[in-house]
Amino acid sequence: MMVVELVNTGTELMLGRVLNTHQHWLCRQLSDLGYAVARQIAVPDASREIESAVREALTRADLIIVTGGLGPTSDDRTREAVAALLGRKLREDSDTLARMESWFAARNRSMPPSARVQALVFEGADVLPNLHGTAPGIAVHVKPNSFRKNGSESWLFLLPGPRRELKPMFADRVVPRLRGILPEEQRLYCRVLRTTGLPESIVEQRIEGPLDGLVREGLELGYSAQPGQVDVRLAAHGHGAENIVERADIRVRAELESAVFGIGDETLEEVVVRLLEGRTKTLAVAESCTGGNIAHRLTNIPGASVVFRCGWVTYSNESKHRLLGVRTESLDQFGAVSEEVAREMAVGACRAARTDYAIAVTGIAGPTGGTPEKPLGTVFIALASPEAVEVTRWLNLWDRTTFKEVTSHQALNQLRLELQKTR
Amino acid sequence: MMVVELVNTGTELMLGRVLNTHQHWLCRQLSDLGYAVARQIAVPDASREIESAVREALTRADLIIVTGGLGPTSDDRTREAVAALLGRKLREDSDTLARMESWFAARNRSMPPSARVQALVFEGADVLPNLHGTAPGIAVHVKPNSFRKNGSESWLFLLPGPRRELKPMFADRVVPRLRGILPEEQRLYCRVLRTTGLPESIVEQRIEGPLDGLVREGLELGYSAQPGQVDVRLAAHGHGAENIVERADIRVRAELESAVFGIGDETLEEVVVRLLEGRTKTLAVAESCTGGNIAHRLTNIPGASVVFRCGWVTYSNESKHRLLGVRTESLDQFGAVSEEVAREMAVGACRAARTDYAIAVTGIAGPTGGTPEKPLGTVFIALASPEAVEVTRWLNLWDRTTFKEVTSHQALNQLRLELQKTR
Repeated sequence: MMVVELVNTGTELMLGRVLNTHQHWLCRQLSDLGYAVARQIAVPDASREIESAVREALTRADLIIVTGGLGPTSDDRTREAVAALLGRKLREDSDTLARMESWFAARNRSMPPSARVQALVFEGADVLPNLHGTAPGIAVHVKPNSFRKNGSESWLFLLPGPRRELKPMFADRVVPRLRGILPEEQRLYCRVLRTTGLPESIVEQRIEGPLDGLVREGLELGYSAQPGQVDVRLAAHGHGAENIVERADIRVRAELESAVFGIGDETLEEVVVRLLEGRTKTLAVAESCTGGNIAHRLTNIPGASVVFRCGWVTYSNESKHRLLGVRTESLDQFGAVSEEVAREMAVGACRAARTDYAIAVTGIAGPTGGTPEKPLGTVFIALASPEAVEVTRWLNLWDRTTFKEVTSHQALNQLRLELQKTR
Repeated sequence: MMVVELVNTGTELMLGRVLNTHQHWLCRQLSDLGYAVARQIAVPDASREIESAVREALTRADLIIVTGGLGPTSDDRTREAVAALLGRKLREDSDTLARMESWFAARNRSMPPSARVQALVFEGADVLPNLHGTAPGIAVHVKPNSFRKNGSESWLFLLPGPRRELKPMFADRVVPRLRGILPEEQRLYCRVLRTTGLPESIVEQRIEGPLDGLVREGLELGYSAQPGQVDVRLAAHGHGAENIVERADIRVRAELESAVFGIGDETLEEVVVRLLEGRTKTLAVAESCTGGNIAHRLTNIPGASVVFRCGWVTYSNESKHRLLGVRTESLDQFGAVSEEVAREMAVGACRAARTDYAIAVTGIAGPTGGTPEKPLGTVFIALASPEAVEVTRWLNLWDRTTFKEVTSHQALNQLRLELQKTR
C-alpha cells in the first residue's frame, strides 16, 4: 500500500496557541482522493526538527506533504532545511521573482528585500505558482530515494502555511498530480452518512448485524460521534469498492431511516435551508437559551436570505413579552422555561415575521438556574407550522457552548423532520 | 532541554473525519506548565503504526504522552502495542476491575465481558484511575530506556481518548507528577497579549525595535494572526523568565495601546461582557450580515444575561422596517447597506430594547450583491450610546463565514473602545 505522511511546521502549534486544522483538511482531501494518511507529524519552526521529521518520513513514505515555513521571515526554515537534507542547491526562479514583483506592484507596494528569498527553489524541482500569496510551493520527485532501504522513489511537496494559499494550491497544483500517482487497486472509496437523534451505541447496534456480510466482503466501518450527531463512515479499497459502499449505504438507510440527514460534509442547517428553498417556505427563529446560534448557523449557508426572514434573541422575560407577545401571565404562571412560553414564542415569531414556519427555543443553559421540576439542561423547542404548533421537551446536560450547539441541532432537526413529512 | 512528544491514535483523525483537538489542548496545558512540546505525531488505530511511533518517540523524548486506544473495542490497540514494545506483561489490576464493576453497577448495567480487557495494566506501571469512564490511564517510568543511545530514563503516559476522560485525568493525575519532573531552569514562562484592529506586519513593526534589548536578554517573540486578531506571545526560559516577560508586556502595551484587548485565552466578547457588567450597562444587538453571530458570541459568556437584553437578526428589508423602525424612505434612498440604515437600526434597537447601548451591523457578505459604490464586503457598523450614534465603514474581503467572524469582531471592538473611554 502507498504510504502517505504529512509534516506540519509551526511553533505556535506546539505551544497549543493555534489549532492545527491543516492536517484535518489535508487528510480529508486525501481520503476523498483515495489516499489514506499513515502518519501526521508536527514540529516547531526549527531547522533541526524539520530536517529530522522530513528525513524520517522519507525513510517510510511514498508521498510526503510538508506545510509551512516557506515565508520570508526568520522563523521560515523549511526551504533551507529540506534543501540541506536532500543535498540540493537553491537557485532563484525568475518566473517566481517576476510573479512576486507584480504581486506587490498590484498592491501599490515595492517588494521588500527580505521577500526575495521566497523565489528560491531546489535544483530539479517543480515550482507550484502561488496565485494567492508570494511564496510558491515546490514539488520534488526524490528518485531514487536514498533514505529508503529499497531505494524506491518518493514524492515530496512543500506547500505554504497560510490557509488561503494552501487550499487553492493543493486543489489546483497538487491534486492533478496525485490523481496520476496512486494505482487504482489501492484507492480508498469512502462515504459518510450523517445521523442525528440516536446515540452512537444504538446506531452501531442497529447496523452492525445487517452489514456483517458486507464487512466480510471488505467493507470498513467507522464511527465518529459528537454531541447530537453520529457520522457513519463506509469505506472499501480497490476494485468493487464503490459497489460495496453503495450497498452498505442502502442498508444503513433502511435501518436508520430518518435519522440519516445528510452525506459527507453536509450540515443540518444546509439541509434545512435547501428543504425550505425546495418548498418555497420561509422561516423565523425566536431564541432564548441558544442565544442566536440557530440564526448564526442558518445564515452561514449561502442563499439563506431567501428563506430566513428574521430572528429574535429574547434573553430577558421582558423582551419575550414585548417583542414576541408572550403573555405576562404565562411567564408568571409557567416560567420562562415552559411548554407554554415556547409555544407563544413560536406563534409570536411566526405572526410578527409573517413566515410559514417559526422555531422557538427556551431552556436552562446553566451553570445555574435549575429547579427540581425543571433541572439544569431542561429545554422546550416549539415549531410553529402552517398546521399546528408542536412542542418537544429535552434534557441537555452539557457545558454551556455544547448545550447551545446540541439544542440548536435538535431544533433544526425538528424542522427538518416536519419539512420532510410534507413533500 | 527536556524533550516532550505527543502521540495520538485514531483512524478517524487520519481520514480527516475528526479534528485533532487533543494535541492542541495538551500542548497548551504543557506550555502553561513550562514544557515545550518538540513533536506531535498522529497514527491510525493499528498496532504496527502505534508501536513504531512510540518506539521512535522513545529514542528521542524524556516525556511521552500517548492518547487513545485504551477502550474495549477491536480498534483499541495501544495497550497491547506498547506492552509488546516495552516487553512488559499485562496483568489484571483488581482495583481497576472493582472500580469498573461499580461504574457499570451505578448505571444499572452489568459489565460486558469485552470491557474486562481495560483492567489490564503493565507490570511495574502505575494505574491512573479514571473517574469519568472505564479505562484507566497508565504511567510507566522507562528506566533505563534502552531505546535511547545514552540509555537515560523516560516517562511514558498512556491516557484515554474521550475528551471528558482525558481532560480530568491529565489535570488530576498527570499534572501533579509533571510538576516534579521538569527542572526549574528549563521551565518556559509564557504570556500572550491579544490585539485587534492592526495587521500583523504593523504589530511586528511597532514592537520589534522597543523589544530588541529584551530579545538579547532571552525574550522569545511569537505571532499568531487570524482574521481580525493578532496574538503576541512573549516567552522566556528559566530563572528571570517572568521578569523578562513582565517588562516586555509593559513595552508592548505602551506601543500598541488600546489595540491590546486581552491576555491569554480571553475573548473579545468576554471583555465586552465584563466591561458592561462593571459599568452596569445593558446592550441590544441588531444584526443583518452577521446573522446572529454577535448575539451568539456574547451569549457564550456565562453571565451575559445580566447585560445582554435582546437581539434581532433582521435579514430582510421588511424586518428592518417593521421590527426596528428603519424608515422605508431610508431603505429606498440609501439602500439596506448604508450609514443611514445602520444608524436607524441601532437607534431602533436601543429604543425597542430600552438598553444603554445598541450595536447594529449591515453589510454585503457575498458571494453576490456588490455594486461599484458599495463593493462586496462593504459593512456599516453603528454604535448607539447614551451620548450619540457613531457609524464606521469597513471593507471586509473574506469568505462568508470569515466575513461574519471579522465583522462581529469589529462591532464588538467598537463597543469595547467606547466603554473603555467611559470609566
